[in-house]
Amino acid sequence: MTTSISGRSVDDLLPPFLRHGAIAYMKGGSLFIRDRRRLPLEIVDIECRSTEEAAAAIKAMVTQGGGPLEAALLSLLLASRRGEDLERAASLLSAARPTNSTMRRTLAVILRDIKGGKDPEEAVSEAFAYYDALYDAISDIGESLIEDGDGILTRCFPEHTFMLSVRKAKEKGKDVKVFIPETRPYLQGAKLTEPSLRAMGIECYLITDGMGAHYMAEGRVQKFMTASDLALSDRTVVNKTGTLSDAIAARWHGIPYYAFSLSIDKEASREGIVLEERDGWGEKGYGAKMLYPLFDVIPSELVTGIITKEGII
Amino acid sequence: MTTSISGRSVDDLLPPFLRHGAIAYMKGGSLFIRDRRRLPLEIVDIECRSTEEAAAAIKAMVTQGGGPLEAALLSLLLASRRGEDLERAASLLSAARPTNSTMRRTLAVILRDIKGGKDPEEAVSEAFAYYDALYDAISDIGESLIEDGDGILTRCFPEHTFMLSVRKAKEKGKDVKVFIPETRPYLQGAKLTEPSLRAMGIECYLITDGMGAHYMAEGRVQKFMTASDLALSDRTVVNKTGTLSDAIAARWHGIPYYAFSLSIDKEASREGIVLEERDGWGEKGYGAKMLYPLFDVIPSELVTGIITKEGII
Repeated sequence: MTTSISGRSVDDLLPPFLRHGAIAYMKGGSLFIRDRRRLPLEIVDIECRSTEEAAAAIKAMVTQGGGPLEAALLSLLLASRRGEDLERAASLLSAARPTNSTMRRTLAVILRDIKGGKDPEEAVSEAFAYYDALYDAISDIGESLIEDGDGILTRCFPEHTFMLSVRKAKEKGKDVKVFIPETRPYLQGAKLTEPSLRAMGIECYLITDGMGAHYMAEGRVQKFMTASDLALSDRTVVNKTGTLSDAIAARWHGIPYYAFSLSIDKEASREGIVLEERDGWGEKGYGAKMLYPLFDVIPSELVTGIITKEGII
Repeated sequence: MTTSISGRSVDDLLPPFLRHGAIAYMKGGSLFIRDRRRLPLEIVDIECRSTEEAAAAIKAMVTQGGGPLEAALLSLLLASRRGEDLERAASLLSAARPTNSTMRRTLAVILRDIKGGKDPEEAVSEAFAYYDALYDAISDIGESLIEDGDGILTRCFPEHTFMLSVRKAKEKGKDVKVFIPETRPYLQGAKLTEPSLRAMGIECYLITDGMGAHYMAEGRVQKFMTASDLALSDRTVVNKTGTLSDAIAARWHGIPYYAFSLSIDKEASREGIVLEERDGWGEKGYGAKMLYPLFDVIPSELVTGIITKEGII
């Protein structure tokens, strides 16, 4: 475990439900994934007794953002303990979220290491330590971009790297406010981001998905910062639906847009991006035809920089 | 009543709940206002026994868009039947929705006519006929802007003028699709616009508030068209929160933005715009601080044209 501000680990600095064991954990041979769709009002952990069940839960959006990575790592470890074909297990898990290439590539690296003779327990444990160090390094860069008095607009649930950046900025005495779109239809902004930031003592405001431009026009937003579900080396970003709209509004108002990325996907190209399309949202339908593109593609000309461990691209 | 396509009145062409008597009506000395917050699943008419109660209902968003105008006209008529001070009644009603200057100016004109000796019943009846003719004339212009094969993005509940424009386009054989943001927090898009368009047989899709830019980027949106809560002679538009975001995205993608206006407010200036700010949305709060600016100001450089009875400004 790496150490960060005042000798505390990354895990200590995070809001409670982003800490290890609060996203997914193993118990009695099963994988339990905390159901983010029910947070913060209910704590429900979904039991997955097989790799198939874990893949199905990940596909059903039980966990989101960096959650699928953590759940998939533990699921692969359990598959190894059960003596399953790990190639098949990794393939099942990767297919559950085709846009999430960080998860797919991490599983591929672990698989290669295990084939090369590494103990599966050690391989997974190293992956966790690698990501903790990564969150720490990336959030140091994120923190450096935040200025005293900044209002920051975000989108969906920007997770470890953004949370730690804001937390570190606050601990350095910077005054920072965050505007959080509720992020329909699953409300990750309302259910995950806002309670997380509030739990860390950050001044934050919940807004509806169309209000970001309003607060830019009022001069209350100085930065737009999000996570990325996929980031390409040409600086194209793929992120939750709604991000494109705010990125365009940020450009219009001369506000920089930064996306955090755990790893740039150097092989992917803009033409080859696999976007997940879902059916209706399953609520408040009244019989309407509903469209739900999970992700937006944000072209590089709208992206000021991608924050990676190697610096800002 | 004016006649429109195939000899049918404007009222015949409108979706059922925009017809006279379905927005507000008088019964037994009371004003009843249909509660749009509960449509389309429940039909609940709020009884207002006094001008004060009518003003309170209008302020509480029982009706929206052009609804406050229709309710206020009938409320003024009842106030006259009760022998109230009409100046005071008009002032109470106008104050219920400070951004709605069409309602305020219409009440002022009627008040002036009554002072000049006109019978109150006749004055209100003339106002209704005036607006029917206005809807018909404006929607003829709106229809002329719609091209065969157009995808149109709208926002909130764009009411009579937009509905009639799309209906007339369809009756002329034009293929038209409408993308409707649900419009949080009150969901006017999901509850009013989508069922209205569907009732008229228009192909339409419900999307969340942040998705407009996505469908512009995909080439599926050719026009952005909304109503306006206020339109100034310098082409500044005030409309429901979220409109600014889509107007910027439309500009970015080279898509024209047209706003419908019943009457340009020639006296108002951009600096003097009174924007209503509300407290939290009263739902799914989890203790979060919520911001709710009812309206966006869309600067004239983002507005391709305002559709009025005099033509496109």
